[in-house]
Amino acid sequence: MNRHDNKNKMGLKQALDAIREGTLSAESMIEECFDRIEAREEMIGAWQHRLSREAYLAHYRQNREFYEQSLLKGLPVGIKDIIDTAEMPTEMGSPIHQGRRPVDDASCVELLRRAGAIVLGKTVTTEFAYFRPGKTANPCDPSRTPGGSSSGSAAAVADDMVPMALGSQTAASVIRPAAYCGTVGYVGSRGEFSLRGIQPLGQSLDSLGMFARRVEDIELLRTVLLRQSDTAPVQTILKPTKILLVSGPAIGETSSDMQAAMRRVQKMLTGQGVTVVEPGSEIGLADLVTHHSVVMAYEVSRNLVYESGRCEQLSEPLQTLIETGLAMPRTDYLNALQAAEAIRQKLLAEYPDVDAILAPAAPGVAPEGRDNTGAPHMSRPWQVMGLPVVTLPGLVDTDGLPLGIQLVGQARDDDRLLCMARWLESLLS
Amino acid sequence: MNRHDNKNKMGLKQALDAIREGTLSAESMIEECFDRIEAREEMIGAWQHRLSREAYLAHYRQNREFYEQSLLKGLPVGIKDIIDTAEMPTEMGSPIHQGRRPVDDASCVELLRRAGAIVLGKTVTTEFAYFRPGKTANPCDPSRTPGGSSSGSAAAVADDMVPMALGSQTAASVIRPAAYCGTVGYVGSRGEFSLRGIQPLGQSLDSLGMFARRVEDIELLRTVLLRQSDTAPVQTILKPTKILLVSGPAIGETSSDMQAAMRRVQKMLTGQGVTVVEPGSEIGLADLVTHHSVVMAYEVSRNLVYESGRCEQLSEPLQTLIETGLAMPRTDYLNALQAAEAIRQKLLAEYPDVDAILAPAAPGVAPEGRDNTGAPHMSRPWQVMGLPVVTLPGLVDTDGLPLGIQLVGQARDDDRLLCMARWLESLLS
Repeated sequence: MNRHDNKNKMGLKQALDAIREGTLSAESMIEECFDRIEAREEMIGAWQHRLSREAYLAHYRQNREFYEQSLLKGLPVGIKDIIDTAEMPTEMGSPIHQGRRPVDDASCVELLRRAGAIVLGKTVTTEFAYFRPGKTANPCDPSRTPGGSSSGSAAAVADDMVPMALGSQTAASVIRPAAYCGTVGYVGSRGEFSLRGIQPLGQSLDSLGMFARRVEDIELLRTVLLRQSDTAPVQTILKPTKILLVSGPAIGETSSDMQAAMRRVQKMLTGQGVTVVEPGSEIGLADLVTHHSVVMAYEVSRNLVYESGRCEQLSEPLQTLIETGLAMPRTDYLNALQAAEAIRQKLLAEYPDVDAILAPAAPGVAPEGRDNTGAPHMSRPWQVMGLPVVTLPGLVDTDGLPLGIQLVGQARDDDRLLCMARWLESLLS
Repeated sequence: MNRHDNKNKMGLKQALDAIREGTLSAESMIEECFDRIEAREEMIGAWQHRLSREAYLAHYRQNREFYEQSLLKGLPVGIKDIIDTAEMPTEMGSPIHQGRRPVDDASCVELLRRAGAIVLGKTVTTEFAYFRPGKTANPCDPSRTPGGSSSGSAAAVADDMVPMALGSQTAASVIRPAAYCGTVGYVGSRGEFSLRGIQPLGQSLDSLGMFARRVEDIELLRTVLLRQSDTAPVQTILKPTKILLVSGPAIGETSSDMQAAMRRVQKMLTGQGVTVVEPGSEIGLADLVTHHSVVMAYEVSRNLVYESGRCEQLSEPLQTLIETGLAMPRTDYLNALQAAEAIRQKLLAEYPDVDAILAPAAPGVAPEGRDNTGAPHMSRPWQVMGLPVVTLPGLVDTDGLPLGIQLVGQARDDDRLLCMARWLESLLS
């Protein structure tokens, strides 16, 4: 079915344009989102808490004038349940915080509200955005994991329940579920967005992330979340000149399907006249996986202090992570931070004219079973270097399951990365 | 009066040692803290909320066994009112958040509690840790500002009401009040501590800070707040070999008293065989003041989103800061971040063998009047570079008012900085 035929399959910007042009009403789009949720939520399990259709529409109609004049027109957004909301519980995927009701909205939630989005609900997160999965299934194949930790946000957008959702990433928590569910995911550079009201896990690693159907939607959300202006960004497509292609094995285990997909992309790029280079093993990209793991264990154990006193309510993997962090010599942690920064500098020095890095967004398609959320190693290198990342759908395996690839930019150069992602998106579609 | 003669003038570690040796009881120390508060609080105004003596002692006695076995023995700590506490309001110095009661303790509060500190109360902060002063007076001269934004924490420690207090610094919010009130203040490197539960102002600038009477107390608190172990740190004194002395004028306006004090310290250092060098103007230290201001305006306006919708309840300086940040071209912000990092690299490259930087902690003594908290420019350079800082008392002007100096370390090398601060402390005492 053509995306234009089905309102709630439209991209955010497409829908907003249609609403402005008068060919679509916001209310009908909202209704279709609720239709979709009612039809699919029992199977997908994307939501932890949500507004009823009646409550949503009553609020929308009471404030119709505001929403009609707003940028986001009252369309629904899903918020990962690790991001504070004053009007709904924020339980962080843990029984420790059952019914927890923050007193403030996170700044990202406040910014979306002010731009005219309505929080339809809180989406399922793994336990404290780490490994223990929630109830969410992969919309492409419900027997598979949606990936984590932003499981519900990825599934809700991929399954056409909402046109936009927020997530967060400390290891692979946006890029991996976006890749597994087949939607666009974006993780901002370290320091890019205010993280006020988002549960911190690792201060050197945490990033805000977004899910949408197209890169142009991400650009719009980014404008709102950077509080840059109340109007849509000027969007340009930028064709990269030179790409550093990091095939899976340079980082870690990768499926043969994914390796074949990367070769297909490489051919498409060279066919378009883009120079593709591959890094030598002396760069040490695989080492970044370890450095990331070290930093994460150390910092998580300093952030989840209250929770570590209630370890009978924590999953075993999280207990182990905290124990590892607490037992770690501090020099290991400082060395890992320093080594990651040294590799970032080395990449800049050895590939000064590379526009972006291209790599698999995950080792392959979403694994079967839902007892874990898949391996995070494909994201660890970029996350520990604080780089912005976009994952794009479009490639599939022989069963039609998504094989996500990711485009990685320079630190704090997110705008340019998104312009290049638009070019790659057009190539893949 | 010798500090040992008065229990609540003792340093934290001195008191803990005495309690362990049986020459001091925790309860008598607690009682003296309350005696002091009762005698002085009306004039000093350090506290926003606090436990009554009865409630404190009842809690202590109910949990005596835990406290007797703990590291911090049930001694009282003051917590800046921008740091979340579940058992007391956290109002951030603003009428917007009057009566605000967070659902969780900040991780730093939780760590102190677990180590056996008892939160005596919340200390006065300026409005959102920016410029509008609270009610606090300078204990050295109540007609003068205590400095801000961690006004109450600095005054409470300097006035012997508590042996330890937490603050936070985005510009000069720990170093300046510690200097003005004449106590030891410490600001951790960027990324050093978990900031979970501390109101964010600027993600590239915010740091956790501490106040105590001696550097050894700071080292002890640091161990607790890094969750490094439940025992006291191994403390060593480190004499620096080479110091980069940044006289006030290299950064901005400085009083002649302060300039004279810096020359006295320079003589003391060279007298001890320490090599003292001064930076050339080509380093651009004064530019860092501007870069910091740019980064702060941009980021504050993205963190205080909810509040900026209630500007009739904001002070004029804060409104102006937010407006400046919102009107700023994004490239100005990114350029300022980049320029600050370039200057940090330049300092490392040009002075590879310098052990620490020594500079005035404030332009001079605490200014008269309490309608503002003094100028922050002496802290901006180090804060925008993410460096750890200790301010030390000991120097005074002709009226006996404190002239604080600060020792600045390498990023994430806080331990070494504190060892050198102990040496300088012994030189100044």
